[in-house]
Amino acid sequence: MSPQPSASYSLTLRCEITNRPGMLGRLTSAIGEVGGDIGAIDIVRVNRNLIVRDVVINARDDVHGREIVEHVRRLEGFRILHVSDRTFLMHMGGKIEIRSKVPVRNREELSMAYTPGVARICRAIAADRSRAYQLTIKRNTVAVVTDGSAVLGLGNIGAEAAMPVMEGKALLFKEFGGVDAFPICLATQDTDEIVRTVQVIAPGFGGINLEDIAAPRCFEVEDRLKATLDIPVFHDDQHGTAVVVLAALINALKIVRKPASQVKVVISGMGAAGIAVARILVGAGIGHVVGCDRRGAIHRGRDLEGNSAKQWIAENTNQDGFSGTLGEALEGADVFIGVSAPNLISATDVRRMARDPIVFALANPDPEILPDDVEGIVRVMATGRSDYPNQINNVLCFPGIFRGAFECQASQINERMKLAAAHAIAECITPDELTEEYIIPSVFNRRVAQRVAEAVVRAAQETGVARRHVSRASHWPLPADAHTD
Amino acid sequence: MSPQPSASYSLTLRCEITNRPGMLGRLTSAIGEVGGDIGAIDIVRVNRNLIVRDVVINARDDVHGREIVEHVRRLEGFRILHVSDRTFLMHMGGKIEIRSKVPVRNREELSMAYTPGVARICRAIAADRSRAYQLTIKRNTVAVVTDGSAVLGLGNIGAEAAMPVMEGKALLFKEFGGVDAFPICLATQDTDEIVRTVQVIAPGFGGINLEDIAAPRCFEVEDRLKATLDIPVFHDDQHGTAVVVLAALINALKIVRKPASQVKVVISGMGAAGIAVARILVGAGIGHVVGCDRRGAIHRGRDLEGNSAKQWIAENTNQDGFSGTLGEALEGADVFIGVSAPNLISATDVRRMARDPIVFALANPDPEILPDDVEGIVRVMATGRSDYPNQINNVLCFPGIFRGAFECQASQINERMKLAAAHAIAECITPDELTEEYIIPSVFNRRVAQRVAEAVVRAAQETGVARRHVSRASHWPLPADAHTD
Repeated sequence: MSPQPSASYSLTLRCEITNRPGMLGRLTSAIGEVGGDIGAIDIVRVNRNLIVRDVVINARDDVHGREIVEHVRRLEGFRILHVSDRTFLMHMGGKIEIRSKVPVRNREELSMAYTPGVARICRAIAADRSRAYQLTIKRNTVAVVTDGSAVLGLGNIGAEAAMPVMEGKALLFKEFGGVDAFPICLATQDTDEIVRTVQVIAPGFGGINLEDIAAPRCFEVEDRLKATLDIPVFHDDQHGTAVVVLAALINALKIVRKPASQVKVVISGMGAAGIAVARILVGAGIGHVVGCDRRGAIHRGRDLEGNSAKQWIAENTNQDGFSGTLGEALEGADVFIGVSAPNLISATDVRRMARDPIVFALANPDPEILPDDVEGIVRVMATGRSDYPNQINNVLCFPGIFRGAFECQASQINERMKLAAAHAIAECITPDELTEEYIIPSVFNRRVAQRVAEAVVRAAQETGVARRHVSRASHWPLPADAHTD
Repeated sequence: MSPQPSASYSLTLRCEITNRPGMLGRLTSAIGEVGGDIGAIDIVRVNRNLIVRDVVINARDDVHGREIVEHVRRLEGFRILHVSDRTFLMHMGGKIEIRSKVPVRNREELSMAYTPGVARICRAIAADRSRAYQLTIKRNTVAVVTDGSAVLGLGNIGAEAAMPVMEGKALLFKEFGGVDAFPICLATQDTDEIVRTVQVIAPGFGGINLEDIAAPRCFEVEDRLKATLDIPVFHDDQHGTAVVVLAALINALKIVRKPASQVKVVISGMGAAGIAVARILVGAGIGHVVGCDRRGAIHRGRDLEGNSAKQWIAENTNQDGFSGTLGEALEGADVFIGVSAPNLISATDVRRMARDPIVFALANPDPEILPDDVEGIVRVMATGRSDYPNQINNVLCFPGIFRGAFECQASQINERMKLAAAHAIAECITPDELTEEYIIPSVFNRRVAQRVAEAVVRAAQETGVARRHVSRASHWPLPADAHTD
């Protein structure tokens, strides 16, 4: 199941071509023959005999990229001068930087920003620690913390190799939510050390976003940090996913006209995301939730090997005590949510579901079942991929949820705030716009983060965790370029 | 000994004034009467009866600022609408931010910067960890780490209150050295925990700048981190100060035409800075160094209460075993270096020194002796203050030394690199320019950081700690605005 050529495997080929008619056609045909997808073509320089061109080519993967280059290399009349990998170029030197917000052009400014003027600011905070929220970056800064143990689909690749993802996350926090985020990649995978390290570095941060920490360790890390820190702690793989899944489900249920309290939802995968999805669905009043791991449905009677997260699932879902396989669980189910592994269910499984099946197959990059395999069978389908409709993407949640938490100086991100975020995302699509292929807004819909933030502020105020009064958000402090849609 | 009014205690007074001739003169006279120093005066709005003005006033300190405001409040025909503190305004919301270096304007860019494209970058680093230096921010990013135990002259004010200083440091790192720096303020003052926390968060950083950690804890923290991390660890309060003091001393000795190997230097203060100054002077070949703390000279015969840093001083300085007071030590000394406390020596002490006394009185903000008190007695005088000639300021060192270390991917900042930095700073002043009042370049001399960086790269290469070859620095990657002088 090869993916389509995409910009994430994109090369720029600098090629010297004999200057005679028809040569560019030969080049593009050759690239097309081996499945390369041609983007921009530029002329670098020309003389009477030779022309040098840059050709951007999207490939399927590394191997495919090399195949294309080799194929061009064998063509007569063409000489490859240089091959550059656009994705690697984009990451060179890292993707974020620290910038100053105040000028230090002269002695006067230096004496205000640094010594001796800064001493007055320090004394003000020493006298009242909460003033750090006005006078330092704490107000708007989140640490993106990982131990590198469960990075994307790559598994336990360690702290250094996790950095590009954490930097990417920081970039998205700023781009979509105006939140300053800094990556902290830990050289330990010991639960106690992770917890202690985050506690020790917490004073300068206004929030902690845990990221790509393996289950079940992530549950304990999060619980202990929440219990000891007075700033929001949010494990995005769990709660970001859960919020966006709930948002999509709210809209999907509108289409099939089924009330939340009466539907049966089967979740495949009881890792960080699956557990959190189950929890939020229970909190949102979904009538019947069944969670499945590799050994089948989770129920009260099963030995769960001391996994307290699964224990919670056993106690709070599957009231009927169903104990079969995933396939059996799908019998008559209204909704399937996969956060597990590729190709786990078949069209036959989906046919056994209730009328108008809703299938969220979110394993990445290869989903539990491909949309193409259930065309005409499912009513609403979503994946984690951008090349199908209805992409379930955490970017819809985390920038706005922290933007809101920071606006009102929330001490935590609680369940009500997450539910509010899910409803806000769902409501970004009006009843007029809602269709089977449009149940969740685009990640590039700039209004989403602001709507989420506003809803989160209200929920924080209603639940008493807001420590700062926010009137209403007409002068929302998003960066200028994030105001437009 | 009140300081002069300065921008670090600067107010903006918004004042409604009865609109008739002579009123502005009355206002400015009144402010002058109580010692306020008037800067810009702006008109906010005018009508027939009233005029609203903003007046910028520099005061000596908080109390003085309030005095001025009260004095104006009592004037007839004036109504104060608003008082704003310019320094506090400058620090509102913090002084630094995280910015993206790559665009994510559309799906194609998102797929290269984040999933799925980022997975290829992660895999490349997982296969070869050293590629983090090319593909992440590690290459150019330093953590500015403090436990808040010895912040400026303010003492043990804790992590939150230390943030404004660490943000200021980060700002200066970028402004003067093009180095990305991020503040990490620790909620612990336990040596083991500090060491472990820094080790655990180290993978994403290319260097560690320790800051404002109390002695003697700072020595152990630094030693243990140096021994266990493969990135530069630099305690700026020690080594930054030592480098700049040595730079100033090199130039001062040129003026008095005394060879380094023959001079006697007395250091007052055996905290972090004093110990480091003593060490670098010994390393630089200064003939005779005597270090003094509150109990007088450090010598082999003294009980040093297990302070291993002072033990090193006892073993490596004061070869004569002198055991008197600071005043006695100054008898016949060529150089006094104070990194201790205000008003510790008198003009009489300086008169007892050898011909052409050199006095670096660096206690801040009030030096060991004021330049005014030894006019005509000292030959060369330096302080830590910007309102006298020859300001000894660490900003001359840390941006350039990390710039250089990062350029050549140095595994450490060793003694040779520090000596090279000191000589580079000293050489920023040409023989023609050198005078008693100009022994050290201005902090706004933008060439200093580049010269320091170049010298540091050479020293790193010569001592085998450079892990990346750097040819020469004509295309130095300083930010565009840092190129100009």
